[in-house]
Amino acid sequence: MEVEEEVRRIVEQVKDLHDSATSFVASSSHEELSLRKRSSAVEASITRLHSTLVSDKHLDPKLFDKALFFTSPFDLYRILCMLADGDSSSFLPSKPQGRFVRMFLGPVNVRASRKDIQLKVKEEYNSYRDRTALLFLVFPAILLTLRSYVWGGCLPAFPVQLYEAWLLFLYAGLAMRENILRANGSDIRSWWLYHHYCAMAMALVSLTWEIKGQPNCVQKQKGVRLFLQWAMMQGVAMLLQNRYQRQRLYTRIALGKAKRMDVVWGETAGVDGQLWLLCPLLFTLQGFEAYVGLQLLRTALTGVVAEWQVLICGILLVVMAVGNFINTVETLMVKSRFKAKMKRSKSRAELD
Amino acid sequence: MEVEEEVRRIVEQVKDLHDSATSFVASSSHEELSLRKRSSAVEASITRLHSTLVSDKHLDPKLFDKALFFTSPFDLYRILCMLADGDSSSFLPSKPQGRFVRMFLGPVNVRASRKDIQLKVKEEYNSYRDRTALLFLVFPAILLTLRSYVWGGCLPAFPVQLYEAWLLFLYAGLAMRENILRANGSDIRSWWLYHHYCAMAMALVSLTWEIKGQPNCVQKQKGVRLFLQWAMMQGVAMLLQNRYQRQRLYTRIALGKAKRMDVVWGETAGVDGQLWLLCPLLFTLQGFEAYVGLQLLRTALTGVVAEWQVLICGILLVVMAVGNFINTVETLMVKSRFKAKMKRSKSRAELD
Repeated sequence: MEVEEEVRRIVEQVKDLHDSATSFVASSSHEELSLRKRSSAVEASITRLHSTLVSDKHLDPKLFDKALFFTSPFDLYRILCMLADGDSSSFLPSKPQGRFVRMFLGPVNVRASRKDIQLKVKEEYNSYRDRTALLFLVFPAILLTLRSYVWGGCLPAFPVQLYEAWLLFLYAGLAMRENILRANGSDIRSWWLYHHYCAMAMALVSLTWEIKGQPNCVQKQKGVRLFLQWAMMQGVAMLLQNRYQRQRLYTRIALGKAKRMDVVWGETAGVDGQLWLLCPLLFTLQGFEAYVGLQLLRTALTGVVAEWQVLICGILLVVMAVGNFINTVETLMVKSRFKAKMKRSKSRAELD
Repeated sequence: MEVEEEVRRIVEQVKDLHDSATSFVASSSHEELSLRKRSSAVEASITRLHSTLVSDKHLDPKLFDKALFFTSPFDLYRILCMLADGDSSSFLPSKPQGRFVRMFLGPVNVRASRKDIQLKVKEEYNSYRDRTALLFLVFPAILLTLRSYVWGGCLPAFPVQLYEAWLLFLYAGLAMRENILRANGSDIRSWWLYHHYCAMAMALVSLTWEIKGQPNCVQKQKGVRLFLQWAMMQGVAMLLQNRYQRQRLYTRIALGKAKRMDVVWGETAGVDGQLWLLCPLLFTLQGFEAYVGLQLLRTALTGVVAEWQVLICGILLVVMAVGNFINTVETLMVKSRFKAKMKRSKSRAELD
């Protein structure tokens, strides 16, 4: 009975496989748990030591610098990097998965178990932002050009709504990816997530907003036009930011000073030459964003266009502009404080 | 030097931890790979044996039944369940992650590595569908009631658009969750995913669709009203489906005949008594969906309402109705074929 033999053989194989799988899952989850415990313990003692060093006024400043900033083996920052960037990183306690991810995905685990997958996620996020920035520049540029030369000054509803739907899709993707990066240990500021939620709300609201046509559409479409111009500037800024971020990240990785999962939306420490180009551009952009928002609010409140969408979009734009501004300034301040500390330590070391 | 001592201690701890983590990751991924290979090999030989059994005309039918349907150890179905439902399941080759998930999340892995997490994901999906079904029933019911008794026969734009935005959010969540279940080994039909994409497109399109007010809005809002009525029926059907699905799933798990990750959108094999209630309801619903779609198409093509949104929504509704119908019929046919086979085997066994 050849068939019976075959069936019997398969049954044996499946049973064996089942047993090995069960024992593997049990032993590996046991080992994982112990690694998790050890990681948290070490991280806790580093944090404790750091706060002791910072708060202890009687400590010799040279010892302080030595412990915090200097080369091996007395370098807390370097050790933190080793902890957070090596294989042990996947066992560090992570921020709980955000509500946004849970809302769309349920309780699935988006944390990568291996460092190389985490880095792949990060790389893909960077290239996603590159593609995005390009579209941010090209899409509104095409709309505005066609408006002037083909559509006789009057935007038709469909392409604008297509653009708004794209914005909704884009910000949903960004919010999702950044939530995932956070769960994987990136220390992205939470404002940028809130910013994306606001942008999603605005895209959704603007979809319900009727794009008025002739007659007199140059007047009626002023808000949309301003918004598209702002989006183009946004595209340029994003391209610059991405370039700057990548360079900064690679420099910091090379210096061993960064966890590679760090993502910062544009405005942070780094390659100084480019920062002098980036900062004014960012502040101008934020100013323009607030201006567009205030224009919309004025239109809504003086009652020229009585739609609620205008009011909501205006408020959201102003909120986003103010939030972006505060966060940019805060990041710059953190950066300059860190720099000052580094400089002080360096000069002390040279005095030695 | 107490501080130096502490730093040295921490450095040692981090190095140790780093080494254990590296060796754990290396050894466990090695073992995982070998389990994966064994699982695929066993699965392949089961598939091969099954097709031999089915295609071999000269085989003794009693032997065939014995191998396929009978109790231990000669039961291929039972063995497949053991393979697919035990700890070994996480090492079986899975369907590649869908484009939809990649588009929003990037290359992150949404496959649960342990069976208990997979089951948690499945449970959460079920309760998500329950909440959803309730809202599907209540939300349009409130809108239609308010329309009749408060708004004087005329739906205001805002609540309807809120409902449409909710639909978009809902179907995005469903599509995401079902994609994730698929990656976790569920054999959900791909049509249900396409259905959700269509529904998302429709929700997006309907958001841009101006809800016309007075005068004569009873006439103009006929499409919206029909759509809301259809949504209420959908809610009732979903509640029944969920109940039915749960019972069927638990029965099948108890019988050892189902992989627990199976999800089927409503229309499949199972608890016969309820199926006679469910099937007519589903067919009626699909008929009504097609009717609403055709009504919209008629409105668009006779030019009463010349908006492109009406045309697109009409087409999408008809496509969804036809797709749902075909898939329901196919599932019923698979079910009845399976039943006939089981019956034949049983009667042969009794003849013996």
